[in-house]
Amino acid sequence: MAHSRTRHRVGLIGTGFMGKAHAFGFISAPRVFDLPVDVELHTVADTDLAAAHVAARAFGFAHATADWRDITRNPEIDIVSITAPNALHKEMSLAAIAAGKHVYCEKPLAPLADDAREMADSAERAGIRTQVGFNYLCNPMVVLAREMIAAGELGEIRGFRGLHAEDYMADADGPFTFRHESAGGGALADLGSHALATAEFLLGPIAEVMGDCVTMIGERTDGKGVRRPVDVDDVGRAFLRFASGASGSIEGNWIATGRKMQHDFDVYGSKGALSFSQERFNELHYYSVGDAPGRQGFRRIEAAPEHPPYGRFCVAPGHQIGFNDLKAIEVAGYLAAITGDRPEPFNFRAGLRIQTLVEQVRRSARERRWLSVEN
Amino acid sequence: MAHSRTRHRVGLIGTGFMGKAHAFGFISAPRVFDLPVDVELHTVADTDLAAAHVAARAFGFAHATADWRDITRNPEIDIVSITAPNALHKEMSLAAIAAGKHVYCEKPLAPLADDAREMADSAERAGIRTQVGFNYLCNPMVVLAREMIAAGELGEIRGFRGLHAEDYMADADGPFTFRHESAGGGALADLGSHALATAEFLLGPIAEVMGDCVTMIGERTDGKGVRRPVDVDDVGRAFLRFASGASGSIEGNWIATGRKMQHDFDVYGSKGALSFSQERFNELHYYSVGDAPGRQGFRRIEAAPEHPPYGRFCVAPGHQIGFNDLKAIEVAGYLAAITGDRPEPFNFRAGLRIQTLVEQVRRSARERRWLSVEN
Amino acid sequence: MAHSRTRHRVGLIGTGFMGKAHAFGFISAPRVFDLPVDVELHTVADTDLAAAHVAARAFGFAHATADWRDITRNPEIDIVSITAPNALHKEMSLAAIAAGKHVYCEKPLAPLADDAREMADSAERAGIRTQVGFNYLCNPMVVLAREMIAAGELGEIRGFRGLHAEDYMADADGPFTFRHESAGGGALADLGSHALATAEFLLGPIAEVMGDCVTMIGERTDGKGVRRPVDVDDVGRAFLRFASGASGSIEGNWIATGRKMQHDFDVYGSKGALSFSQERFNELHYYSVGDAPGRQGFRRIEAAPEHPPYGRFCVAPGHQIGFNDLKAIEVAGYLAAITGDRPEPFNFRAGLRIQTLVEQVRRSARERRWLSVEN
Amino acid sequence: MAHSRTRHRVGLIGTGFMGKAHAFGFISAPRVFDLPVDVELHTVADTDLAAAHVAARAFGFAHATADWRDITRNPEIDIVSITAPNALHKEMSLAAIAAGKHVYCEKPLAPLADDAREMADSAERAGIRTQVGFNYLCNPMVVLAREMIAAGELGEIRGFRGLHAEDYMADADGPFTFRHESAGGGALADLGSHALATAEFLLGPIAEVMGDCVTMIGERTDGKGVRRPVDVDDVGRAFLRFASGASGSIEGNWIATGRKMQHDFDVYGSKGALSFSQERFNELHYYSVGDAPGRQGFRRIEAAPEHPPYGRFCVAPGHQIGFNDLKAIEVAGYLAAITGDRPEPFNFRAGLRIQTLVEQVRRSARERRWLSVEN
Repeated sequence: MAHSRTRHRVGLIGTGFMGKAHAFGFISAPRVFDLPVDVELHTVADTDLAAAHVAARAFGFAHATADWRDITRNPEIDIVSITAPNALHKEMSLAAIAAGKHVYCEKPLAPLADDAREMADSAERAGIRTQVGFNYLCNPMVVLAREMIAAGELGEIRGFRGLHAEDYMADADGPFTFRHESAGGGALADLGSHALATAEFLLGPIAEVMGDCVTMIGERTDGKGVRRPVDVDDVGRAFLRFASGASGSIEGNWIATGRKMQHDFDVYGSKGALSFSQERFNELHYYSVGDAPGRQGFRRIEAAPEHPPYGRFCVAPGHQIGFNDLKAIEVAGYLAAITGDRPEPFNFRAGLRIQTLVEQVRRSARERRWLSVEN
Repeated sequence: MAHSRTRHRVGLIGTGFMGKAHAFGFISAPRVFDLPVDVELHTVADTDLAAAHVAARAFGFAHATADWRDITRNPEIDIVSITAPNALHKEMSLAAIAAGKHVYCEKPLAPLADDAREMADSAERAGIRTQVGFNYLCNPMVVLAREMIAAGELGEIRGFRGLHAEDYMADADGPFTFRHESAGGGALADLGSHALATAEFLLGPIAEVMGDCVTMIGERTDGKGVRRPVDVDDVGRAFLRFASGASGSIEGNWIATGRKMQHDFDVYGSKGALSFSQERFNELHYYSVGDAPGRQGFRRIEAAPEHPPYGRFCVAPGHQIGFNDLKAIEVAGYLAAITGDRPEPFNFRAGLRIQTLVEQVRRSARERRWLSVEN
Repeated sequence: MAHSRTRHRVGLIGTGFMGKAHAFGFISAPRVFDLPVDVELHTVADTDLAAAHVAARAFGFAHATADWRDITRNPEIDIVSITAPNALHKEMSLAAIAAGKHVYCEKPLAPLADDAREMADSAERAGIRTQVGFNYLCNPMVVLAREMIAAGELGEIRGFRGLHAEDYMADADGPFTFRHESAGGGALADLGSHALATAEFLLGPIAEVMGDCVTMIGERTDGKGVRRPVDVDDVGRAFLRFASGASGSIEGNWIATGRKMQHDFDVYGSKGALSFSQERFNELHYYSVGDAPGRQGFRRIEAAPEHPPYGRFCVAPGHQIGFNDLKAIEVAGYLAAITGDRPEPFNFRAGLRIQTLVEQVRRSARERRWLSVEN
Repeated sequence: MAHSRTRHRVGLIGTGFMGKAHAFGFISAPRVFDLPVDVELHTVADTDLAAAHVAARAFGFAHATADWRDITRNPEIDIVSITAPNALHKEMSLAAIAAGKHVYCEKPLAPLADDAREMADSAERAGIRTQVGFNYLCNPMVVLAREMIAAGELGEIRGFRGLHAEDYMADADGPFTFRHESAGGGALADLGSHALATAEFLLGPIAEVMGDCVTMIGERTDGKGVRRPVDVDDVGRAFLRFASGASGSIEGNWIATGRKMQHDFDVYGSKGALSFSQERFNELHYYSVGDAPGRQGFRRIEAAPEHPPYGRFCVAPGHQIGFNDLKAIEVAGYLAAITGDRPEPFNFRAGLRIQTLVEQVRRSARERRWLSVEN
């Protein structure tokens, strides 16, 4: 049974929340999906060398370093995973691209769309494969939603309501961090971007936006006890007009007390509707006007092998996949793109698109008027 | 036990959905609340005389008529209840006010704010008591929400998200009706008005709005088989800025396939949050940051005697009140205002306020810019 | 439009929780259902005369008395409603029956089945109409469940799980009351009886039972500060075998901390399943194996005019009826039986049946063995 | 940084549902938990050699074989994972134990308790470490429930209701399989065993049981088109009496149409209550009588880093772990036991206990009487 396998050596920059998620993804994806690739965890970088060593041991990287350039300049490494602070994404990506490496960068691709554009252009010129981390779109139930819409099961799509609310910035006594000062930051960029991505994933291109960005906690205390003004938004909202003619709205909110992972959407069509919450992301609620009178209602569809690639994780329905499994799906799609089997699931061009939308919403909010979005 | 009781004779105009609800309210309110009033159902009017007779017999009105003026000009009648089509609210109300009667008018008070203002002014000059039907605000759980906010249980209030979605206009083959042509009509006026009323009920005055009104089903066929253009909105959205500094949004939607009564809200404060859906209106979900770490979560508070006036209907918790019970609470508040015990719960001035908000949102949508709202 | 109407004069014994519910029912039923009957609230009795007067004024009874015999012996009264303590049901009912009156008695019909049998026999010999208050069965969604089962929508019915859990006895420091000593009392009789009634309402006759009755709070302090032993069960469970061959179980529990009205059931058939909770009693959850693969799930059907008699209360779906509305439906059915249009919905014979089941379960628990139930 | 690591070579028998879950567990556990062990996937066995090769390639086993004895007799292998059909568990386990290997066996340990006892005894005599797969108990929210109970947060525990319902045998046209004939099989053994395990995990030892086992689909067609009688139960129920004095019930049901993973429990105490469903296993619902009046209700606690070891998978709350993550936790606990750090989480002795309970319930059902359980 000769089965030629490709080998990919991965360098990971960053060992925090998303660094771990990337590592889990690279470990799981080839096994869960039986991909014809060997993934070798080559080097992990963290400015805190001890943290890099801990991560190396935990995840099985052969090498640890405090200097991310040890990854981008190492000819043995094929794929660079970037989970460093947003402000560094561009420099790291361009260095990796210049070295001919595939680049997998956490969202947002860059704080500013111009930077993201430069990154996307560079990647395409270099012919390498890119990926931006929008793993909520990898959820089998969100994919199901998209397929149902595409197949016309909901009829003509008329409306969308999207939300991504969490509460990690709700405490006004929480410290001033880089997230409160970085150009291009805020709840809209951090969370609203997910809602925008989901909106286009399901309904197609957005043509026009009207934004509303609000800062509710105007000052925070930094590590030195100094009160500093917060410039970024705590809540970012937008009205949307899709190219299809449908309308909608989104909200990104990081001061939504009590909410931990409320990435929700509702889609209304002429023949049916869908309702989803990431709080219970193994479920999709579906209403069909075709059901018999007196027997209509939103159905709670539970994730099952009928909803690929759920069955890769579990052959029994209703057992549920977890957040890290979404990352494994994302990585699997990316590896398939690298090996040439499939298009890139969410490449730098797609990441740029989200940044463009975020910037137009923010600019619209600032100028207090509707703005169109090029398509 | 001498207990002097006042007697109020009621004339009801209209015998449809809301006509019945008013009749139930007048029957139940004095009994449920043990009010010192006798309510006598005097005359019911419907342009369809047979329908008026059926209603008279069913509800116990002594008289039936096809001419609503038999009610406004009858000196025996003290209270006029108006549940006729919106376009007639003004003429009927002014006639009743001129005759010195108390007037209880279904929402919207009038399609246009100028008319509503004239009605409110007339009523105040005449010194009679008025009421507009915003019965969702009578819900013990919504009152609880307001009290919790007022008492500071949620801390500083930062954000609001309101929604009122139904699907009774979702079928594009449904007929063209008066609701599709009346000036001032549409989903924003019909349903969004409830969300706006709830917003101000909970967070206080709105200072600024940015509207978005969309017509998705542009033509409908009238009773004669003629295709007619639809001018009113199917979806009306607004960004809100409250006088308090909080921000929010609302949506009114009558093409929300599958939704029957989705009058929802979320309120986020610095110390807690509330989440509510009229789909399960005997519940209020409450999150407190004061709960012990690892034990925090949204609590499902079920309506109980601790939440007045629930106990008037049932001494046991969790047994649930119904839609008509909300109407009984509304009528009870109105009767108490008439007898002088309490301020009017939601008088014509309050009804005008909602119309003003609706018009500003609509105008803002048309002009595609933020508009302020006088307070 | 000559419409001959019958007139019924009602005497109500008891003014507590259920007394009020009966009064609301008699007030609402003729109006909601447009019944050709006039209901006159004649006399209300309470051992506390002041309470009787308050109730008379609140609900509109013409007379108040401290002696219930003023009702049973008054020839003007046609219907006697009994909501007094359980131990008095028999004496009051027999007196009313002897006087030729129709009798509407709250559940349980009597603490002991032998007494209930005597009551049922007497009523049938006298030819009067009887009713026992099992109002949960009047819920349109429970009726829908029964109809779906009868129509074969669920295929062959295989299993049932019923529950009625509340927490009004969960506080061990709560006082010793008549409910803790009365022969035939306890959670099984109080609450489990509802689950048994629902079981037979949906699946038909129970043929065999195995009971389990447990007292967890063995002593309580009475009003004089004396510790007294509690004989009745705090939790009553049963395995069930239906005549149809299906099997099931029920639980009645009055120390279920946190539960206020958890009258739940699940029914499993070969083609579908139903799931219901009285906590949200305007919903019925329905699973159909006939739905398309990958689109299956429990549907949340919301009460709507398609589910009679919901439409009598509200012409719009999803607006929800309340606990007192269930009582109005019960009274309407009873009044229709009195006027001869319909069979008695739940007469004394049906009430006896429930008592028989309760006693067999209790006896089975005591004897620790399965017992058959005659059918 | 000298960090001595032990190396464990794993042999896996079986490549189906649970075989994959074990493989995922061994891959993830050391990485997620940063355990000082190296796990080497040595050999995988499947009677279908091609399947073994596929699994070897997918998961990274160095060797594949059709003969499980290649694993038990290979001196290089330290740990044997058994996910073969239940009837083979004993022979495989004893062979592995005889060879001095640690054994991780899927549940049920053996169809008959006597066999399970022999296995447990052998393992203890041999001094090797054992594990039985009851991974639902590894859920951080179930562990939280146990800790809350142990800490007295619910006060005195009075009642338990457990359920494990699925529908994989609900189709009467589904084929006759080994699950329908094996001694000791059925829904009680397959699913009810989980409910029994959870019952004791939370409330401590069960002292007495009363069982009810029902076969609803009495015949099925085997692969050769022959109708064969089904002896095992489709539904197994039990009343429980705990050594603590609390009472409860469980149900295992594999014909529960529409249910995919309904492993639920409710626990009632004097100060609070818990409610859980594996359908949404990242949540625990908690009611506290200590909450303020009018503010009480079941709280939806979402899994978060406060609930170890959730934080090992994700540092952000509410992101959710999946079924395979539960397996990783199970494996991590087992590896820690092997390296001597911790007691075995659920060893063969514990597995025997569950089998003993299952057999007593089944025997009780057959003899139609209560039976005690030794402790």
